[in-house]
Parts: sequence; C-alpha cells; structure tokens
Amino acid sequence: MHRLRVNWRVSLRLLGGVLKWLAVPLAIPLVVAVIDGDPLVPFLAPIAVTLAAGVGLEQLETEKNMYTREAYLMVSLSWLCVGLVGAIPFVLAGNGLLAAPSNAIFESMSGITTTGATIIDDFGAHSRSILLWRQVIQWLGGLGILVLAISILSQLSVGGAQLMETESQTQDVQKLTPKIAGTARLIWRLYAGITLLATGGLFALGVAGIAPGMDLFNAVSHAMTAVATAGFSPQPDSVGAFAPAAQWLLVPFMFIGATNFILLYFFVNGDWGRPLRNEEFRFYLALVVGASVLMTLLLLVDADVATGGLEETVRVATFQIVSLLTTTGFATVDFNTWSPAAKHLLFACMFLGGMAGSTTCSIKLLRWLIVLKAFRRDLFTTIHPEAITPVRLSGTAVDEATIRDIYAYTLLSLVIFALATLVVVIDSARVGLELSEFEAMSAAAATFFNIGPAFGIAGPFNSYSPFSTVTKAAMTLLMYVGRIEIIPVAVLFTRSFWQS
Amino acid sequence: MHRLRVNWRVSLRLLGGVLKWLAVPLAIPLVVAVIDGDPLVPFLAPIAVTLAAGVGLEQLETEKNMYTREAYLMVSLSWLCVGLVGAIPFVLAGNGLLAAPSNAIFESMSGITTTGATIIDDFGAHSRSILLWRQVIQWLGGLGILVLAISILSQLSVGGAQLMETESQTQDVQKLTPKIAGTARLIWRLYAGITLLATGGLFALGVAGIAPGMDLFNAVSHAMTAVATAGFSPQPDSVGAFAPAAQWLLVPFMFIGATNFILLYFFVNGDWGRPLRNEEFRFYLALVVGASVLMTLLLLVDADVATGGLEETVRVATFQIVSLLTTTGFATVDFNTWSPAAKHLLFACMFLGGMAGSTTCSIKLLRWLIVLKAFRRDLFTTIHPEAITPVRLSGTAVDEATIRDIYAYTLLSLVIFALATLVVVIDSARVGLELSEFEAMSAAAATFFNIGPAFGIAGPFNSYSPFSTVTKAAMTLLMYVGRIEIIPVAVLFTRSFWQS
Ligand SMILES: [K+]
Ligand SMILES: [K+]
Repeated sequence: MHRLRVNWRVSLRLLGGVLKWLAVPLAIPLVVAVIDGDPLVPFLAPIAVTLAAGVGLEQLETEKNMYTREAYLMVSLSWLCVGLVGAIPFVLAGNGLLAAPSNAIFESMSGITTTGATIIDDFGAHSRSILLWRQVIQWLGGLGILVLAISILSQLSVGGAQLMETESQTQDVQKLTPKIAGTARLIWRLYAGITLLATGGLFALGVAGIAPGMDLFNAVSHAMTAVATAGFSPQPDSVGAFAPAAQWLLVPFMFIGATNFILLYFFVNGDWGRPLRNEEFRFYLALVVGASVLMTLLLLVDADVATGGLEETVRVATFQIVSLLTTTGFATVDFNTWSPAAKHLLFACMFLGGMAGSTTCSIKLLRWLIVLKAFRRDLFTTIHPEAITPVRLSGTAVDEATIRDIYAYTLLSLVIFALATLVVVIDSARVGLELSEFEAMSAAAATFFNIGPAFGIAGPFNSYSPFSTVTKAAMTLLMYVGRIEIIPVAVLFTRSFWQS
Repeated sequence: MHRLRVNWRVSLRLLGGVLKWLAVPLAIPLVVAVIDGDPLVPFLAPIAVTLAAGVGLEQLETEKNMYTREAYLMVSLSWLCVGLVGAIPFVLAGNGLLAAPSNAIFESMSGITTTGATIIDDFGAHSRSILLWRQVIQWLGGLGILVLAISILSQLSVGGAQLMETESQTQDVQKLTPKIAGTARLIWRLYAGITLLATGGLFALGVAGIAPGMDLFNAVSHAMTAVATAGFSPQPDSVGAFAPAAQWLLVPFMFIGATNFILLYFFVNGDWGRPLRNEEFRFYLALVVGASVLMTLLLLVDADVATGGLEETVRVATFQIVSLLTTTGFATVDFNTWSPAAKHLLFACMFLGGMAGSTTCSIKLLRWLIVLKAFRRDLFTTIHPEAITPVRLSGTAVDEATIRDIYAYTLLSLVIFALATLVVVIDSARVGLELSEFEAMSAAAATFFNIGPAFGIAGPFNSYSPFSTVTKAAMTLLMYVGRIEIIPVAVLFTRSFWQS
C-alpha cells in the first residue's frame, strides 16, 4: 500500500527528530571549547537552532509512519539540513577560509557525507573545538549512513540495496519507522563500541610512547573518522603525523568500517564463520589483499618511493589501498609523488568502495560483484537463450529486476562522474585555474564517491580551496547526492513524486 | 532451432569465402606498385595466400547455413585472419618499424578494425603502394563492419543491436547466410557510391587549385578512410596537410560514415524525412552540433589556440569534434596543445561514437539513448513500482531483456576500458616509459573504442611506436575485441560455446 500523495508533513516531523538529536553531538566540541576557553557561541547557537527547529517540526504532524516517498524526502532533507546546520560553527568561529559560508557549507557537507575533502589550508588558524567538530560530524555521518543503508535504502531497494545482509530479510516497505528505531539501537552500540576500541588502542600507543603525539584528542579524532571511513584529520599531514604502529592500527579499523555491520553484529555475537560464508566479504578481502600486493610491487619498482625498507613500503602501500578502497581518505605520505601506475591504481580503487551496509561510499562491492556475475551469466545466455540461469549471491537467486537496477545504478554513477568531471574541467578553464585532466577526474571522483583527497592540487596534504566557488558548489552537491545514493534526491525532481 | 554443437566447418568455409575475396582489394596497391616500380612480392604473396587458403577452406564443407554459434566463430576468425594477412605486405616490404611482425600486425589490425592508430613515425620510409594498402584495408574494414553490424550483430542481438534500423525487422536467426548476401549487395553499392562522391569532391578541390596537394592518390586515400570513419592518412600531419576547403568537405563525409546505412539507403531512395523521424539520428545531430559549439567556445577562451580568426576556430573545433565523435580520428591540428577542458571534451566524445548500423565504433548512440531513457523510466518506477512503463524508441516499446543487454554491454565496455588502462599504465611503469595517467587512459580508449589518435605520446601527429611490445599486443587485442563488439570473441572462451 502506498499513500496517494506524499505526506511531506511526516517527512518534516521525522526531520525534526533528527535535528533535535543533533544538539547532543554539538555538545562534544562545546565541552572542549569550555576547557580551552574558546568562544562558546559557535556551538550554543546551532544547539539553540536545532532544538527549536527540531521541536517545532515535530509539532507539525502526529502521524509517524513513512512510506516510500516520505522516506526519500526525509532522507534528502536530513542530509541537506544537517549539512547546513553543521556549517554554523565554522561561520560563527570566523577563522581562516571557513569563515566564508560557501566554504563552511562545503566543509560541513564533506563532514556529514563522510567525504573528508577539506577547504582548510592552515590548520593552525582553527581552535581544537572547531577541529573536533569536523571529526564529530563525520562520525555522526557514518552512523547516519549505517542506519540509512541498512534500514531504509535496503527496504526501498535503491540500486539493488535489498541484497545486502540485513537483520531481517523481509521486504516490508510499510511502517518503516519502528524498524529504523530498532536497527538504529542495535547498530549504534556496535558502532560506538568499535570506536571506543579504536580510541583505546590509539591512546594506549600514545601513552606507551610508541606513537608520540597520539594524545586523547588525536586518538578520539582519528578513531571516529577511521570507523566512519570518513578521513578528516586535525593534522595537516593526516595520519603521516604519527608513528608506524598507529598507522598499522588504523588499517583494521578502516577495514571494519567498510564491512557490513549486520555481518559484524553476528560475528561479535559468536557466529565467527559468517563473514567467510558471505560472498561479498570474500570478494572484499580478496580485493584488499590483491590490490595491496600489487601496490607494494609498484612502489618497489618506483625508485623514488621505496627508500625506507620493506616494512615501510608494505605499510605505505597497504595503508593507502585500504584507505582509498574503503573510501576513508587518510594518507600517511603524499601519494602525488608516486608513479602514474601507482596513482592510477588508487584512482581505480575510488570507483569500488567497501561492502554495502557499512559506512563506505562509492559504488560498493555488492554491486560490482553482481555486475561481474551477471556479465558471466549474460554470456552464457547469449549461447543458450532458452536456458533460465539466475545469478546467485551466496547461494540465493537474484531476481532480474534487481540485476537491472544494479546495472542502472552502476552506470548512472559513472555517467554522473563523467559529467561532473566535465563541469570541473570546464569551470576551471573559465576561471583560468591550471588543472590537468586527471586532476579534474580525480577531484570529481573524490567528491562524488565521498573519498576526500584527490590527485594534484586537491591532494592528501593540500586542500580544495583553490577551486572556484561554482566548482566548490558543484562538488558540495556531488558529495550530497553521492552519499545518499543518488535516487532519494533524483526522485524529488520527477513530476510523479509530487503527484498522486 | 539451434544446432546441438557448433559446426566449426561451416564457419571455416565462410571464412574461406572472405579470404578468397581479400585478393581483390590486395590488387589495388599492387597496381600502384606496378606504376611506381615498387616490389610486387609484398602484394603477390598475400594474394596467393588468401586465394589458396580461401579456396582450400571452402572445400571443407558443403553446408553454408550459419546459426548463432557458427556466426560468432566466423566473425571472430574473419577479423583475426584478415588482420594477420593484412600485415604480410608490411613485413615483406620490410621498411621502417613496420618490418617487425608485431608492429605490422598492430598496424594491420588497426586498419581492418578502422581504428587508425599507427606505428609509423617516418612516413617517408614507406612506398605509396604500402601507404595505400593502409587506406584500402580501412575502407574494407568499414564495409565489413557495415555488413557485420546490419546483417549479423542485429540478428544475434549483440548488446541490443537488434534495435538498430535494418532493412527487415524480422528477427529470424535461422539461415543467416542468404540474408547477409542480400544486405551486403545493397550496402556495398551505397558505400562505394559515397566513397566515389567524396573522392570526386576532394579531387575537384585539388584540380581547381583550392586544395593544393590533393591529387588523386590523396583524394582516394582520404575519401576511403573518412567514409569508413577510420582515420589513417598517408600524410604525417593527417588532414592538416590540406587547405580549409578540403577539411570542411571531409566533415559531412565523416558524419555520413557514422550514420546508419539503412537510413541513408532510404534517404537516397527518396524518403527524405526518414532520418529526422529516427530518434537516434536526432540525438546524433544534436550531440554533434552541441559539442561543436561548446568546443568552439572552449577554444575561443583558450588564448593559445584562437589566433586565426573565427572561421579557423569554428572549423578546427567542428572538425575535431566530428572526427572523434564519429570515431574517425583525423586531425587538422595537434590537439595536444589545447586546454585540459578542450582535451577532456574530446576524450568524452571517444566513449560515444555515432549511430548503430554505421561504420562507427565505440559504444554508439543507440545504446546511450536507450540508457538515458531507461534511467528516466527507472526513476519513475522507483515511485510507482506497480506501473508498467516501457521504454520507447521512435515510438516502439523496447523489451526489458534488451534494456538489460544494453546496460550490460555499456557497462562491460567501461569495465574493459578501465582494466585496459591499468594494463597500459602498469606495463609502462614496468619498462620505464614516461606516461601520464590521462595519456594511458586515452591510449586505452583510443584503441579499444577504435578511435586512433590519443593524447600525449600517441597524439594525432605522433605514433604508438614508443609503447612496449606487451602493451602493443594488448592494444592489438583491444582493437580486435572492441571492433566486433566484444561478445563474439568473449563467447568463444565459455565452455558452453563448445558443448552441446
Ligand atoms: K571519505
Ligand atoms: K577510427
């Protein structure tokens, strides 16, 4: 059953709930601001705004049940509004480039979408509380996307998302709201637990003197954005600021962040064999290992890079592959100096992403796996058109409409990426910004697929500030559309969405 | 009805017919060799080989009817064998880089696939007869692909090819052979007529003194490779060697070469409104005009290029857009010196191609048009899952399996392109060849999509000779697989092809 018309009041009411709760994470940097004696208004003001708007919107409607269209509207509005509200602290703090609203919105959207593309070119200009807010908003974006992916997108079957492992395999679109609450509680504990574990590990390395500089602030900051596969760092040289042990420790946490959380939930609850019975997980593991080995070989060939011994080469290669394949975007070195082959391998990783139902971004391995299986099946059908041979995932047949949806979603992502690149390169020509074709492509991919750092001017130790305001606005839109999997925004621009 | 097993004897018998006929075009450069007093053995030898092999293979089998599998095998073998035989004159002539068999096979495959990627870096080292053979083999490749596309691929429904305009819309896979003969006769006359028209036009410009240097040899050479959207030129600076009038004259012939030939047939026979009633043609026309205008604007902004006045800018922009969008690959200037935005627009054109059922290569606009229409329909279905809304092409509903095939084909092409780029960039790192990421991507696209020139070292006035032998072998394979639309080769590597 569907409603005849979209009930936008329900969407706004649920948006109110999201905004109201946003006051809680805003309190975290507020505490740091109190400790450090920084101005409090940058955080008090948005707390007031979110509480007032949240409570106000909740009065609009008593009905709480979403159907398909209400869910799309609510999702689109939530990421948009949180992105806007998240920019308020940057503008009110008024330091550096983030004082400009367009830059602040870019940075905030990059946060809530777990992209990690930054405008900041002078980290010293910003207080600890502001830098922490960037980390918190990414962590929040990671939690948001888990709930969205597992309990909403999978129910709405966005681009084949119903194939991901969820806690119940019933496809009941009706009454999404109670389901969301249940899943959110389950995921929230797991997500918080993993973040605590990462924080503890990093902090222990700092206290033990193994990783100098890894104080509580840095441990919390990097734990948050590793688990969220988000990639912001309060350090200008990202994870390169810390000792090898800390870099190694972050690798499994990025890997976990890009693993399906329902699979993790079962694993934590004693079903240890479950990940290995999951085809997508095996594909993920194989890709991470294979690409890391290939990258190590490429760096060993490249005389300019392989200077620090085998451990360093393996670490740098593995870290960077895991960072880009999981769409985190941390860096330990400036990979801009690597050979074209090594850079191109990283670029290819940007189009993959980790597992569906995780905090990862990009197209995701579930879709690529189905695409590859369907290619193979279609070849068979070419010779035997009369044979009925379903594509199977972990033993279960995938229906044909889902395969078509996955083909369409993957292709649509690539088409949007191509058009986005044209916008970036043409707009840069307009303002006279020197930008190579590959730099333009990588910047478009890094924002649309929510990776963060790109190659060239927007490299891992650089910033997106040199781009024109038009390009930055386009990239803000790309991050937003890419993070919530295109469809929830795209449907809002169809006439049929608003008609009965 | 299908045969239970593939009857490879039928495929070889029909291959024999193709090889036997190859002796005729080989006689064209032979005549020039006689006139110029060049050695005759480079052409007499392959004539003997093709006649002997052709007649021999025809004795294998009396049965002439192909079914699906025999057709795939025959198509794959034909392009492979003609590619190999076409290399014999280069090796026997023994001049320049083409004396090496691997280079000769690259050049010959680039010819028969109408790619136009060349190994030659010193045109002066080669006789007129050898240079003419390059042109003839491309013209032949164009004719071959017309027959293949219209009467075989459309019947076999390769990647949605059945949607193209054909002379009969009946989808009868049985007894392909008589159909092929009929279509081939019809197309052959049209193709030869258009080539004569182009030759006459170019030669007239030469005789009138408007285009100095456009003698009969050059007129024939460029007419052949324009209509075939193939792009070889006996001039090191391609069409840049001739006056603006000759450049302008080639634009409509490249455009015609990339138009569906059945549509042209009806047009020539008095149904003048037919192209404009065809949605794919309208899409093609709109893209050519739109991209040419955009390119003109980009060149006007680029101070380094727009120096010769508006006519020159419009001409250079239009020529290059038409050349790359139709997958011809001619150049009038070295577009490597253009801005990244202009180069990137050309790069994007490489992925499009002209109309299905023409001599064009790449993915083709028929597929992109269906992809865009299906995206739109799928968005509608997202909101109204219960509604049945077929995708329509020129008013006719397209069935769902065809849409899935087109999604799959388009995506598979992009995946192969991405993997090919990795091979090029990694193998170049192995041998220490300096190659930027964009150069590697463009070289992979230019060979797989049968464009010809790429950016950087393999630019329009350069050659593919600097690539390693492994890379060149991979590119030879890419040209081959890309030209016959992937599937006919891919199915040969499935077990089910050879089993009953
Ligand atoms: K990221
Ligand atoms: K070509």
